[in-house]
Amino acid sequence: MDVTFDGTVVRGGPAARERFYDARGYGRPDDGGVVLAPVEAAHLLFRGDLDSVADRRPGTDGRQLDFPAVLNSTAVSEVAFFVYKDLRDRGFYLSPVDRDGPGGAGEFAVYPRGQGPWDDEVAYRVRAVSERATVDAGALRGLADPVDDRARGSDREPTGVLAVVDEESELTYLELGVPTVSGSTHHDLPSVEGDLLADRVLVRDPPDPLYGRAFYGQPLDEGVQLSLVEAAHLARAGVLAVDGGAAGVIERGRAVEGDRFDRRLGAYGALRTAGIVPKTGFKFGADFRTYDDVVDVEDLGHSERLVRVLPPAHSFAPRDLALDVRLAHGVRKRMVYALSGADEGFGWLSVGRLTP
Amino acid sequence: MDVTFDGTVVRGGPAARERFYDARGYGRPDDGGVVLAPVEAAHLLFRGDLDSVADRRPGTDGRQLDFPAVLNSTAVSEVAFFVYKDLRDRGFYLSPVDRDGPGGAGEFAVYPRGQGPWDDEVAYRVRAVSERATVDAGALRGLADPVDDRARGSDREPTGVLAVVDEESELTYLELGVPTVSGSTHHDLPSVEGDLLADRVLVRDPPDPLYGRAFYGQPLDEGVQLSLVEAAHLARAGVLAVDGGAAGVIERGRAVEGDRFDRRLGAYGALRTAGIVPKTGFKFGADFRTYDDVVDVEDLGHSERLVRVLPPAHSFAPRDLALDVRLAHGVRKRMVYALSGADEGFGWLSVGRLTP
Repeated sequence: MDVTFDGTVVRGGPAARERFYDARGYGRPDDGGVVLAPVEAAHLLFRGDLDSVADRRPGTDGRQLDFPAVLNSTAVSEVAFFVYKDLRDRGFYLSPVDRDGPGGAGEFAVYPRGQGPWDDEVAYRVRAVSERATVDAGALRGLADPVDDRARGSDREPTGVLAVVDEESELTYLELGVPTVSGSTHHDLPSVEGDLLADRVLVRDPPDPLYGRAFYGQPLDEGVQLSLVEAAHLARAGVLAVDGGAAGVIERGRAVEGDRFDRRLGAYGALRTAGIVPKTGFKFGADFRTYDDVVDVEDLGHSERLVRVLPPAHSFAPRDLALDVRLAHGVRKRMVYALSGADEGFGWLSVGRLTP
Repeated sequence: MDVTFDGTVVRGGPAARERFYDARGYGRPDDGGVVLAPVEAAHLLFRGDLDSVADRRPGTDGRQLDFPAVLNSTAVSEVAFFVYKDLRDRGFYLSPVDRDGPGGAGEFAVYPRGQGPWDDEVAYRVRAVSERATVDAGALRGLADPVDDRARGSDREPTGVLAVVDEESELTYLELGVPTVSGSTHHDLPSVEGDLLADRVLVRDPPDPLYGRAFYGQPLDEGVQLSLVEAAHLARAGVLAVDGGAAGVIERGRAVEGDRFDRRLGAYGALRTAGIVPKTGFKFGADFRTYDDVVDVEDLGHSERLVRVLPPAHSFAPRDLALDVRLAHGVRKRMVYALSGADEGFGWLSVGRLTP
């Protein structure tokens, strides 16, 4: 079968179109023939459905490229190839999003099983990365929540997925989402007084609802000790009177943890405003674990989420994502990242395990 | 009861000695009386066993200090107090290691339950830190493997423990150890040839034991693909022939992950030399998962360890330790850190969960 590589795409005639596009969803039809992205051609070569591709790049004299030659060229990234192959192995048809662009862009539209590029629906939007890449948190949120130039006319929005290829070429799929951050924990609290210690605030004579219903602080003897972030939030809300006021508590917080204190206080406040109780997530290596619906601390349910607050313009190492997501899954919680925005509060991003 | 604080320690007479040291293991005997560390005095105040302590620091006129005054002073760190209190609550007697030094050093000798400072045995050597502190990896290894000026004449060496106080004053105990790093996986391998691709080496005609017994690489079609770290190790061992040799593979490794490649290759080689098979730990957020005794890949057991390779002079954030240890526990593996040494190879440090 005569197919040629022009340096950007691989082209075949009507027979190739019939065999590859019509029957098995490779490429896109073009002027009676078919246009294949290099990663698609690499997969056909790997499977033995193509023996070779004629190289028509300038100066190559039309020599024939086999699978290792294509995989070892700059036209196909190994990472994109392993993701393409794995999804095909799992029974999906998929297309590179930017088929005619420079090779190896590494983003794929994956169709529902049994469907293909001739249908309207996209099940997953998958970005392929190496475990060694870094991944911009804002870009992941964009993948989780696509602006609709990506929609293909379907009612269903595709699920954003990050596919990480590790050094042994194994795949980890991470499902991206924009979680609903909303709970029902709203309790009126009387004012209280507290003493600012080095790293906490001690309320010696706490009203019962402070801890017992609104779940602020931890009991200590007859009193309740508040963390600095809880105390700063309550002082700003006018509930807690403390020497130096909210500013004094915030100053202490910055002294013990720097800028991170402001970010965590911001996320804490956003969660409380949404009716959610954040408590320390230290034992899970996160900033917070959260409870949506606290009526009575004596009858506390399972916390639903782990929240990690990220600095502006954060980039993830995929290994750190894998660690967080694996841990959250193991303790049956949803991993949620709070992305510090410029001035419009926080963007929320959930990341979970996925088996496509 | 008349006890006084001189700025370093709290002193009491024979009645205080009898009541606090003889009966309940607080302090050390001194000239018929007792010397208490500030954290011990704080605990007695907290429990109501002492009403107050007379402040004899210069310029204080002997005013009486109550529990909040002591906790809010620089003589006692909140972190040390919460650890001291928690271990007492769990039924242990314990002593600050440096009772007469500046307050709040935060290291404790914890006696076996039912024993105390008048016995010879120490069960745990506990270092108390805030979740906001950073903890030097080398210092943790020192705590895991004490040089014997710390021994108290007992046959049993105390277990090193890091006690982390989180922002809500909850305690997480981490057990430190020096693991035995030794397995039984040694297989003779014939020489093989491979092609260096962008981020792996492809062996097209692999001998069966390469993957099947020694567990190098992953099958890809008829061949075996090796990760760069596996390939560099095999090339250095003279097993793998590849264009550019070991140096070429290492150069590629450095190009994709910098210095970290050299560290990982060093730890990989140390593990293989010890008869242990390291494979990628990506899905667990670690550098490697390891198998001690591989005879046949078809009959592979559970991997025993997760290994994270650390750069020289690494400091941990306690939150990261909590995350690693929690994850490892959840997947029934031991968390092991490989500490890059100056030139004598790696120091090994294991960290696990502990409930004292």
